[in-house]
Amino acid sequence: MTQRVVVVGGDAAGMSAAHQALRAAKLRDRSIEVLAFEATDRTSYSACGIPYWIGEEVGSGDDLVARSADAHREAGIDLRMGTPVTAVDVAAHTVTAGGEDFEYDDLVFATGAQPIIPDWALVDGTLPDHVGPVHTLADGARWLDQLDDRSRPVTILGAGYIGLEMAEAALRRGHQVTLKSQGRVMSTFARELSERVEGGLRDAGATVETGVTMTSIENDDPLILAIGLEPRTSLLEGQVSLSERGALRPDRHGQVQEHLWSAGDCCEVWHRVLDDWAYLPLGTHANKQGRALGDALGSGGDSGLHFDGALGTAITRFTVGDVDLEISTTGLTRTQAPDSAASLLTEGSTASGYFPGAAPLAIHVTADPSSRRLLGVQIVGGPGAGKRIDAAAACLWMGATVDELAWMDLSYAPPFATAWEVLQVAARRLAERL
Amino acid sequence: MTQRVVVVGGDAAGMSAAHQALRAAKLRDRSIEVLAFEATDRTSYSACGIPYWIGEEVGSGDDLVARSADAHREAGIDLRMGTPVTAVDVAAHTVTAGGEDFEYDDLVFATGAQPIIPDWALVDGTLPDHVGPVHTLADGARWLDQLDDRSRPVTILGAGYIGLEMAEAALRRGHQVTLKSQGRVMSTFARELSERVEGGLRDAGATVETGVTMTSIENDDPLILAIGLEPRTSLLEGQVSLSERGALRPDRHGQVQEHLWSAGDCCEVWHRVLDDWAYLPLGTHANKQGRALGDALGSGGDSGLHFDGALGTAITRFTVGDVDLEISTTGLTRTQAPDSAASLLTEGSTASGYFPGAAPLAIHVTADPSSRRLLGVQIVGGPGAGKRIDAAAACLWMGATVDELAWMDLSYAPPFATAWEVLQVAARRLAERL
Repeated sequence: MTQRVVVVGGDAAGMSAAHQALRAAKLRDRSIEVLAFEATDRTSYSACGIPYWIGEEVGSGDDLVARSADAHREAGIDLRMGTPVTAVDVAAHTVTAGGEDFEYDDLVFATGAQPIIPDWALVDGTLPDHVGPVHTLADGARWLDQLDDRSRPVTILGAGYIGLEMAEAALRRGHQVTLKSQGRVMSTFARELSERVEGGLRDAGATVETGVTMTSIENDDPLILAIGLEPRTSLLEGQVSLSERGALRPDRHGQVQEHLWSAGDCCEVWHRVLDDWAYLPLGTHANKQGRALGDALGSGGDSGLHFDGALGTAITRFTVGDVDLEISTTGLTRTQAPDSAASLLTEGSTASGYFPGAAPLAIHVTADPSSRRLLGVQIVGGPGAGKRIDAAAACLWMGATVDELAWMDLSYAPPFATAWEVLQVAARRLAERL
Repeated sequence: MTQRVVVVGGDAAGMSAAHQALRAAKLRDRSIEVLAFEATDRTSYSACGIPYWIGEEVGSGDDLVARSADAHREAGIDLRMGTPVTAVDVAAHTVTAGGEDFEYDDLVFATGAQPIIPDWALVDGTLPDHVGPVHTLADGARWLDQLDDRSRPVTILGAGYIGLEMAEAALRRGHQVTLKSQGRVMSTFARELSERVEGGLRDAGATVETGVTMTSIENDDPLILAIGLEPRTSLLEGQVSLSERGALRPDRHGQVQEHLWSAGDCCEVWHRVLDDWAYLPLGTHANKQGRALGDALGSGGDSGLHFDGALGTAITRFTVGDVDLEISTTGLTRTQAPDSAASLLTEGSTASGYFPGAAPLAIHVTADPSSRRLLGVQIVGGPGAGKRIDAAAACLWMGATVDELAWMDLSYAPPFATAWEVLQVAARRLAERL
């Protein structure tokens, strides 16, 4: 008998799941058919790339599409584009799309997230053209249009990743930029690091206003809303248990309950250091979760793949004119860490001090004083600083202590590091104080 | 009673040991005095930086000195410069320098390494001016003099790290360069990666001759010898057990035997993946070993610091004109790995494919098929490729499997990585084949 799979949502999570389900089933001579619905006219695009498209580093929105609808169809997915699912009946095993009901054996719910829109931004229930989020390729196209006149000042509400990236994009285009935020710039970072990013914004010519609560649209200038995402799960309300935030919490194979699977930005993920669920809507998790889910779904129960949670790792960049900052984090933020945790800021260099291009960086390390286990690392610095976070993430994943990080064998050569790699100096300095 | 420490060798290992011994003793109110002998007129210099000095990226040899003799003296070290130790009597607890005997309670033997010089290169027992190694700052000054005339062709014997770095330096200066080597270019790397580096050398205009055994000085053109290092331990011969290679094998506190300590390039280090001793003469190990040794020495036995071996991690660069390669490795080479080990080469990109500046890279991953443990990773690619090795090194240090590396939470954003970080794609692809 053929296993009928319906996928709701044709982006990273849903399409990864669909492909892997087909592969896994084929490998085991299992019969499976995958029907997928995508509400928009684009699949599998890199939402994270939109600011770089607006900032004119990437030529077109099409460049951000990792895999076209046709490519998905060639792999055997029955993909219906521009077809929003309007209802899901979990008990009856049906979804409704285009007025028609479709039965499924297994449902992959991969609707992703939607940007948070404050009520005051709506005029008669809709957003004016010059106000809105940065989420879909349609948003990107609209902002390119709105920012066509480079003399228009741009206001960005929200100083997290997207806010910072859009500030970079607008500054690179030559706009006058005001960044407004309730909290600090990059507020999940340690205060000293947050201040470095804020300094970078100011050096690049942006006006930064923190402690600001907006309550109305103030003028006709473009206003970019970057105040966060929320899981898009209204289709399941009342049928399935959702978290306080409205997210699904699938197991490590992507299963929510029998015959219901989910992956991507409509889900929370298990935060391994926090030891709790967290909402970390990121493309890299969506891809991994989708693959694990698809493998479980297509293999009929003998999958060896599993998504074992996340660490809160993230990276971004702020590069405008002479300002060139890389910004990255993994593990607990200072606020997430228990009061008993110890933290220390260390300044150093991305290369040997005498080397041309050696850039300053600052590393904030947090650890548990009793177990000496590493809890979190945050980095802000010049070119070469950001990706250092991966070694820290590997340590966190494997449960390393600050001593292990300090003394392990990381790479050194003058163009790349100091003789004690700065990440290890940061760990060592904290270790000495525990 | 004051503990009398004599240090032989004023470079990274010896001076790190001396400083940490003083700090550790002070912290515990222990009385200690440190007398150190350095044969040359420079302390604590970055030998790894010499090629970049010759390649004119670093302005002067002085820039490579991390800490001057005076700075060491200010910290309380009685440092005798230009004073070679001519004899060590381990039984009598004395060293001889400048014709005088000095007694010690504890000896720190940190004489480092010496470059291997083939017999045929010696004329009447000495090297002609235009033939020699790249090891000391004096060597660096001599090569700058020899390469003053940029029309002189330069031959380099040896295609390992130093050979490659000197080829880069000479090419950047505008010399015609021939690189000769018995084995492949960067022969500890997988063949496909080795070929990429060789291709880079050729693209940059170098002539590469492999399978070559030199037996004589062929002409008056500069001939740079870069065929390896050997531990400088002749002062201890017949008194202390040395490895086949002539190296010391101190414990993790730097102790060779009672009252005899050693660190740096005169030592082998424990290779954690090879599960055996290995000769890995690198400044970063010397620094770490020296610090652990000094702490044990100065604390009188209650040190918490230890040097727990290495992984064979290394990194370098080949950047000439349009050629820009980063080259790094950690863990077992294909030759060191058991026959049962599985390896796979994966090609990918340092950033999202659509991102300007995304550079190709290739990653070679080796793992044990039964335990699925990661055994080694090697990387050759464009800017941003090399330091990715640190996440792999952290995994090796912590004993991760390829599955753990593939699914852990490493950082992603379009300017820095693909949605599945390429290092994880490489691990995942190998995992799928185990």
